[in-house]
Amino acid sequence: MNQVKVAVVGASGYTGQELLRILLNHRGVNLVCATSRQYANQYLWEVFSRFRHVPGADLKFTDSDVDAIVSTGAEIAFLALPHGVAAAYARGLVDKGVKVIDLSADFRLNSAEVYEEFYGAAHPDVDLMQEAVYGLPEWRADEIAKSRIVASPGCYPTSILLPLIPLLKAGLLESSGIVVCSGSGVSGAGRKADISLLFCECNESFRAYSVPKHRHLSEIEQELSLAADETVVISFVPHLIPVNTGICSTTHAKVKPGVGIEQITEALEKAYADAPFVRLMGVNKSADTKNVTRTNFVDIGWAYDARTGNVILMSAEDNVVKGAGGQAVQAFNVMFGFDQTEGLWLI
Amino acid sequence: MNQVKVAVVGASGYTGQELLRILLNHRGVNLVCATSRQYANQYLWEVFSRFRHVPGADLKFTDSDVDAIVSTGAEIAFLALPHGVAAAYARGLVDKGVKVIDLSADFRLNSAEVYEEFYGAAHPDVDLMQEAVYGLPEWRADEIAKSRIVASPGCYPTSILLPLIPLLKAGLLESSGIVVCSGSGVSGAGRKADISLLFCECNESFRAYSVPKHRHLSEIEQELSLAADETVVISFVPHLIPVNTGICSTTHAKVKPGVGIEQITEALEKAYADAPFVRLMGVNKSADTKNVTRTNFVDIGWAYDARTGNVILMSAEDNVVKGAGGQAVQAFNVMFGFDQTEGLWLI
Amino acid sequence: MNQVKVAVVGASGYTGQELLRILLNHRGVNLVCATSRQYANQYLWEVFSRFRHVPGADLKFTDSDVDAIVSTGAEIAFLALPHGVAAAYARGLVDKGVKVIDLSADFRLNSAEVYEEFYGAAHPDVDLMQEAVYGLPEWRADEIAKSRIVASPGCYPTSILLPLIPLLKAGLLESSGIVVCSGSGVSGAGRKADISLLFCECNESFRAYSVPKHRHLSEIEQELSLAADETVVISFVPHLIPVNTGICSTTHAKVKPGVGIEQITEALEKAYADAPFVRLMGVNKSADTKNVTRTNFVDIGWAYDARTGNVILMSAEDNVVKGAGGQAVQAFNVMFGFDQTEGLWLI
Amino acid sequence: MNQVKVAVVGASGYTGQELLRILLNHRGVNLVCATSRQYANQYLWEVFSRFRHVPGADLKFTDSDVDAIVSTGAEIAFLALPHGVAAAYARGLVDKGVKVIDLSADFRLNSAEVYEEFYGAAHPDVDLMQEAVYGLPEWRADEIAKSRIVASPGCYPTSILLPLIPLLKAGLLESSGIVVCSGSGVSGAGRKADISLLFCECNESFRAYSVPKHRHLSEIEQELSLAADETVVISFVPHLIPVNTGICSTTHAKVKPGVGIEQITEALEKAYADAPFVRLMGVNKSADTKNVTRTNFVDIGWAYDARTGNVILMSAEDNVVKGAGGQAVQAFNVMFGFDQTEGLWLI
Repeated sequence: MNQVKVAVVGASGYTGQELLRILLNHRGVNLVCATSRQYANQYLWEVFSRFRHVPGADLKFTDSDVDAIVSTGAEIAFLALPHGVAAAYARGLVDKGVKVIDLSADFRLNSAEVYEEFYGAAHPDVDLMQEAVYGLPEWRADEIAKSRIVASPGCYPTSILLPLIPLLKAGLLESSGIVVCSGSGVSGAGRKADISLLFCECNESFRAYSVPKHRHLSEIEQELSLAADETVVISFVPHLIPVNTGICSTTHAKVKPGVGIEQITEALEKAYADAPFVRLMGVNKSADTKNVTRTNFVDIGWAYDARTGNVILMSAEDNVVKGAGGQAVQAFNVMFGFDQTEGLWLI
Repeated sequence: MNQVKVAVVGASGYTGQELLRILLNHRGVNLVCATSRQYANQYLWEVFSRFRHVPGADLKFTDSDVDAIVSTGAEIAFLALPHGVAAAYARGLVDKGVKVIDLSADFRLNSAEVYEEFYGAAHPDVDLMQEAVYGLPEWRADEIAKSRIVASPGCYPTSILLPLIPLLKAGLLESSGIVVCSGSGVSGAGRKADISLLFCECNESFRAYSVPKHRHLSEIEQELSLAADETVVISFVPHLIPVNTGICSTTHAKVKPGVGIEQITEALEKAYADAPFVRLMGVNKSADTKNVTRTNFVDIGWAYDARTGNVILMSAEDNVVKGAGGQAVQAFNVMFGFDQTEGLWLI
Repeated sequence: MNQVKVAVVGASGYTGQELLRILLNHRGVNLVCATSRQYANQYLWEVFSRFRHVPGADLKFTDSDVDAIVSTGAEIAFLALPHGVAAAYARGLVDKGVKVIDLSADFRLNSAEVYEEFYGAAHPDVDLMQEAVYGLPEWRADEIAKSRIVASPGCYPTSILLPLIPLLKAGLLESSGIVVCSGSGVSGAGRKADISLLFCECNESFRAYSVPKHRHLSEIEQELSLAADETVVISFVPHLIPVNTGICSTTHAKVKPGVGIEQITEALEKAYADAPFVRLMGVNKSADTKNVTRTNFVDIGWAYDARTGNVILMSAEDNVVKGAGGQAVQAFNVMFGFDQTEGLWLI
Repeated sequence: MNQVKVAVVGASGYTGQELLRILLNHRGVNLVCATSRQYANQYLWEVFSRFRHVPGADLKFTDSDVDAIVSTGAEIAFLALPHGVAAAYARGLVDKGVKVIDLSADFRLNSAEVYEEFYGAAHPDVDLMQEAVYGLPEWRADEIAKSRIVASPGCYPTSILLPLIPLLKAGLLESSGIVVCSGSGVSGAGRKADISLLFCECNESFRAYSVPKHRHLSEIEQELSLAADETVVISFVPHLIPVNTGICSTTHAKVKPGVGIEQITEALEKAYADAPFVRLMGVNKSADTKNVTRTNFVDIGWAYDARTGNVILMSAEDNVVKGAGGQAVQAFNVMFGFDQTEGLWLI
């Protein structure tokens, strides 16, 4: 199998570790460069004990620098940097012919105003932001294939968009009154020395947070509005759940008059019949995070609540796989002509 | 302190154990009788290892029988029986002058039709069901004080009703479009040998269930409709969360035109200024289950989402304390003239 | 009931919170002072959300200072300070007539040399260290009652000493070859912003640590040697377990020739017949941490392994209750003439 | 790559699911048959939701029958049956030319007397039991390669034997006085509807069990005695830990006079220099289960306790991978000429 030279920029933390795990297992990937300021000069396996003895993990982290990355011959770079840092690398890399898949939120939006509203600062490279493709492969495969920069969607957004997009496109739902409650495992908060993330603060505990305006609303509403072909504003409340990984999202939306469960089912089946990573569980079936952890699958169940006229959509994914690294590699597969599933049968 | 003779009928399982824990700690309680078919003739401490050496735990379980219970001199009986079994005991006991607090759903409703719709069978004693007071002490103290039978509310309903009732009474919310997502610890499912409740099935897992029509909708909508003085129908999705105890409920409701966060805050503060067990966390503050586990508190936070015109209510309680045994004892305190907090400072 | 004026010095963190919880529930305690540099001027309930609305929690933390503590009229001060800090406070307080119960390791040892060997620095107040009574109430009640300074034992040591002391005193065990493996919940490591204590680093994980020479060996061997009336050196390996609280210790020791299970049982029963907080589970019975969490109990089970001539002792306790705050309050009860169980029926 | 036709007999439960996961990912495996009385006629993916959409999971379970298994053309059968059931299948299969790897304890022992002592019944096929090779590939690769029946070692034994065998072979340890404490995740107890395995019974709980004579002592002592070339009897206490998978074993053993840490280190390094799945962590380094879960690795750390003359060995593995299915597939690789690591880089 042909191998693509790959670089990972900023590979520490839970998302970085999962991305590396997937790449080390991918037959079409030749990992030539992994950068991390914090871990420069240490082997991957020294930093991530799970990788000891694993082929390919005897690569050393290097300090981050665009020219150094380019000189490794990398054809593509995955950026797993803290929010706000990716922009500088992205421009330098694409201008030198290295494709970019960014795992942060830096390039997901289309509107400079919306970016500023939600992220509190002007975007440093609006052109590149607007060039970047929102990397949801189930809906953007053609654009991803042709793009030189992909913005991999956020974890919560992925779980919320996949069920809603086909229903909005099919004109089955009212565009106002959509309410989403989600829960995420603690890895979603990152690997930082923060009292609120200690074991004893998270174990035997769950709670809502980031109320009422979570940053992910920006990209969720952007994509829902495109699907509905009109402005969609939603309510979204995330919760922290005492598990390592896993996101479960429960969405309520009002159906349009005359719409019943059969059309909902039909729209979902039609949209995802050939999507290897979307598993439709069925009517009144739930989605359990333990069936998707460490996989690139999203499980979707749905129900119609006749008493309120709401459709209820339930989805589950792993926040660091389909919600981050796995989806990024799925886009990589599209960009480089591999089967979408290559290296991603992580059951 | 004057002691009341108390019986507990059907005291096995997690709810029963918690109820016993609270009663063993209550200075105004003389526990004269604890019944359990399964554990008849064993000491409380033999069945519940946590109670070894604890004063009062050297009481033996006896087999369940109304006359035997009455003959112990019990002035009140807490019923912690499986759904559908309480009715027989309740009638027999109240007719013999023993007050009853029932922890099951058997007496919570007012309407025989609604009961049949949600529980699948005709109610065996509609008169008693309609006589029973829905035991939410923050709103029904006077009725509870005068009643001979109290139906202690369900765990999810308690967490959903306490924030909503004052806002509906104050006319601040639209009565349609209320959406609730809740999560509960696994003890809520009971102590039964069920594969789906095994450690390895629940650990590192969370998922929605009972979609779209959970039984608790019956009592939730009954009480919300009384508060709103009009019919209220809601959407409610519960989730199973990998903790022992704890319920966290997140409610979205549309405010009426002209209503803002100040009126929401004012209505909550006015309603609960003197409620010892309702703790108002404040605007944009969340409620964390780890702050309420093993206590009789309900924590409530709230926010106004200007983008959608929704108020977001967040509440947390312990499903076996304020959601069951603690609330039942709170009603007992009201019925027997104790301070509402007696025996309930379980921090 | 007569109330004693109590101060808690350095009351942040998990141990401090548990100590405060117990004191707030103790009818013989008038908590007049709680000090914390970090939280000075905040109410107890502001720092510890669990204490909102709880009587007595509307006390403000003050900055730490011996004279200020004395001026509150405190008759006794519990010191819950980081290791090495207690010594300064202790001397100042006892010299001013305030009794001291120290929860750190600073005063547990008798030998200045052993202290220096294990703690890496000379002890700042050897006289006071040797005056302090090792606060194991089941074995030292008389000395505790007469003392002005008590050193509350460590968490692991409590679980290891209680089963072994009576067997060594009765001359039933060889003093060499004792091997102990223990596990502790993560609260034992403290509430500090440390990557290794993050939820995702501890959840779904367990491992040994502090091998081969944990500091607690110093006090364990001191007390075992006193019980055996000869030098005892043991092997001890602790493990971190993914629970909030709980310690489980498993000890192997060789019995002397001619000793069988009956003498082991007899010695344990004789030693603890009247000990309210030691629960003897029986032969071949294990001790489960979930039966002791949040209580002051130690559960002990034992077995005789005929194939090796070893006795196996199994014990479980809550590391922040019987392993810290609860045991300290038990000593307080002894010092001030309360029943040992006062305020400690925390089931 | 050449594919071997493989059957899995009795593939329900956690061990069966993990074995299937590994086989579905193995390029050299053509899974032609999976039997389960309970799930006959259901697809693998219907029974194990994690396998939905996964290539190869659209195989149906069939009812168990030797002739039916043979007729699928299976060249080898993995037996994942309850203890005591494997014997009947094993004889039938090997006599018909199908190789067998048994995951139960049925064929691990050499002595019929020891089998009867520990398992409470006479062995049904002593010849086959004695023919079976104890399937520890790091020490038995040659025998495994030539055998037609392999008994895959138990989970606890694997974690205990791998560190001890090279040290006993090198004559570095006393053969008496070995003490082992182990902990295992709850999956090790199996997927059965048992109150003691409920989430609320295992969460926030840990305890010893099977004291003093766990069945695994039989195979552990058998293998240690072979390594030491003299009878070895040990003390072993397992504990249940609230995680899904993972085993952590801590072993104390006395070194022979004149033996120091350098010889221990040298013996381990020499033994495992070329063992891809044994990762030596180093002196005074611990082994953490979170670094091995879902992998076929065993991590080993070691220390010398000069105060007692004990060596302390610490090991961690995943009880259903290296402790069961992974190790079985490792033996399969040896038997069929694949690289030992084929299909087992499950990081």
